Amino acid sequence: MNTYRITVSYDGTAYRGWQRQENTEQTVQGILEGWISEIVGKKTVISGSGRTDSGVHALGQECSLYLENAIDEAMFLQQLNSLLPEDIRVLRVAKEKRDFHARKSAVGKCYEYRIDLRDKMEVFHRKYRFHFPNPVNIRAMEKAAKYLTGTHDFSSFTDLKEDKDTVRTLFAVGIMYEEDALKLSWIGDGFLYHMVRVLTGTLLDVGTGKIKPEEIPEILKAKDRKKSGFPAPAKGLFLSRVFYTEEELDEAVREIRER
Amino acid sequence: MNTYRITVSYDGTAYRGWQRQENTEQTVQGILEGWISEIVGKKTVISGSGRTDSGVHALGQECSLYLENAIDEAMFLQQLNSLLPEDIRVLRVAKEKRDFHARKSAVGKCYEYRIDLRDKMEVFHRKYRFHFPNPVNIRAMEKAAKYLTGTHDFSSFTDLKEDKDTVRTLFAVGIMYEEDALKLSWIGDGFLYHMVRVLTGTLLDVGTGKIKPEEIPEILKAKDRKKSGFPAPAKGLFLSRVFYTEEELDEAVREIRER
Repeated sequence: MNTYRITVSYDGTAYRGWQRQENTEQTVQGILEGWISEIVGKKTVISGSGRTDSGVHALGQECSLYLENAIDEAMFLQQLNSLLPEDIRVLRVAKEKRDFHARKSAVGKCYEYRIDLRDKMEVFHRKYRFHFPNPVNIRAMEKAAKYLTGTHDFSSFTDLKEDKDTVRTLFAVGIMYEEDALKLSWIGDGFLYHMVRVLTGTLLDVGTGKIKPEEIPEILKAKDRKKSGFPAPAKGLFLSRVFYTEEELDEAVREIRER
Repeated sequence: MNTYRITVSYDGTAYRGWQRQENTEQTVQGILEGWISEIVGKKTVISGSGRTDSGVHALGQECSLYLENAIDEAMFLQQLNSLLPEDIRVLRVAKEKRDFHARKSAVGKCYEYRIDLRDKMEVFHRKYRFHFPNPVNIRAMEKAAKYLTGTHDFSSFTDLKEDKDTVRTLFAVGIMYEEDALKLSWIGDGFLYHMVRVLTGTLLDVGTGKIKPEEIPEILKAKDRKKSGFPAPAKGLFLSRVFYTEEELDEAVREIRER
C-alpha cells in the first residue's frame, strides 16, 4: 500500500463544495476522484482534510490517497492538472507514511476570510471577497478576537449541531487591515459547520458596534446561535492551510501573534 | 444639452468586448446603453474612449453621454449600478463641459498587462493574468522597452491595418516585477488594433531570448507584423486609465519613469 498527500487549490464559485454527492459531478472531491480513477485505471476515492461549503475556496486543501501500486509523483501531478478544469489545480503530490490521513492526521487548520470595505464593489474581487461597505472599528474587533481565542464550547457559532463535541480551540485570530481590505485569519484545531463564517460575521458586527467586545464571553456561554452575528457569505472564505506537525502549526500561530 | 463623463470598470471575461454589436447584448457598451435608455426613458447612446477586445478588462474605461435634461449624478450612478450585472460597475458620473467627448478629448491612455510567471497557474488569477511559466530576463525587456518608447510607425505591432495613420507615440513603458508576477504598463497617445497585446508578446519574446533588444529598431522599420512577437492573450489586458489633461498624463508618465 502506498500513501500520498495531495495539496489542491480551487476556486469554489462553480462547485457545490468539496464533498462528493450522489447525483452531481459538481463537487471538487467528485471531480478529483473521477480523474484520479481514470489515471490509475480503477475506481479510487480520496479523503479530504474536511469539507468546504458550496462557494468556499481553497488555497491549500489536503487529501490522502491510497494506492496499491506506486506512482511517479511529478508525472501524476502533471497528468492530473492536464485533465482537471482550470479552477482546480493540484499544487503538490507527495509520498507519505503509510498511516497518513488528511483529516485524522491534521493538528490544525487555517482559514482566511477576505472583506472589501470599499464603497463600491470591485468587479475583480466580486467572487473572492465579501463586500461590506461600512466603517469598522478594528480595535474593538481585536478585543473581541482575544475573547474568542482559546478553548471554548463554540455552540453559539455553528449553524448545525451535528457534532456531539462542540468544544474547539482557536489558537490565533489575525486581523490585517490595508487599503480598504480586511483579511481575517483563523487558526484552530478544527472548526464546526459554518463556524468561521459566523465568527467572521460576529467580528464584523463588533466592528460596526452592533455587538460589544465585552459581550463575547456571554455569547459563548449562552450556547445559542441567536446570540452571535450573521454568517458571512461563502465567497470570502478560503481554506488556507492544513497543519500536520505541531512545529508548522506553532510557527503559523507565532506569525499571526507577532504581526 | 448636458454632457456627462462616465467612468466604468468591467470584467471582460463574459463579454464580446466593449463595442455595441447588431445582434448581441453581450457587449459592455450595449448593456450600458440598454440600462441608461431605461433610466432616462429614451433610446440613448454613449461614446467610449475606444474599443476593448473580447475578454479584455477595464479598470477605468471612460464614456461620454449627452442628455437633454440634467440628471442627479449621484442618484444616476446608484440607479445604474443597481441595474447593471455584477461584472460591470460604474465608478463615477461627472458633469463635463458641453464639448467633452470620451474619445476625441483624450490626450492619452494607459493599459496594464498582467503576467503570472509561476510554474503552476494560480486558480484565482486564471481569468486576469496570462500564465507564462518561463524565466525572463527583465534587463533585456527594459532595454527593448526603451527602443519602443517614442514616436514610431507601429505597423509591425498591429494585426489589422485599418488605420491609415499607423504612427503612434509611446510615452512610457513600465515593467514591474514582484513575486513571480509581472505587470507591464503602456502609456501612449493611442493604440492600434491588438497593439498592446503584440507589444507585450514581443517584450516576452525578448525576455526569453527569442528576440534581442537590439532587433527592435529593425522590427519597427520593417513595418511587417511577421517580425514582431506573439499576441499576448486578451485576459491579461486591462484598460487602466484615460487621460484628458496633459497634467495628469505627465504625472502618470513621470511616475513610471521614476520607479
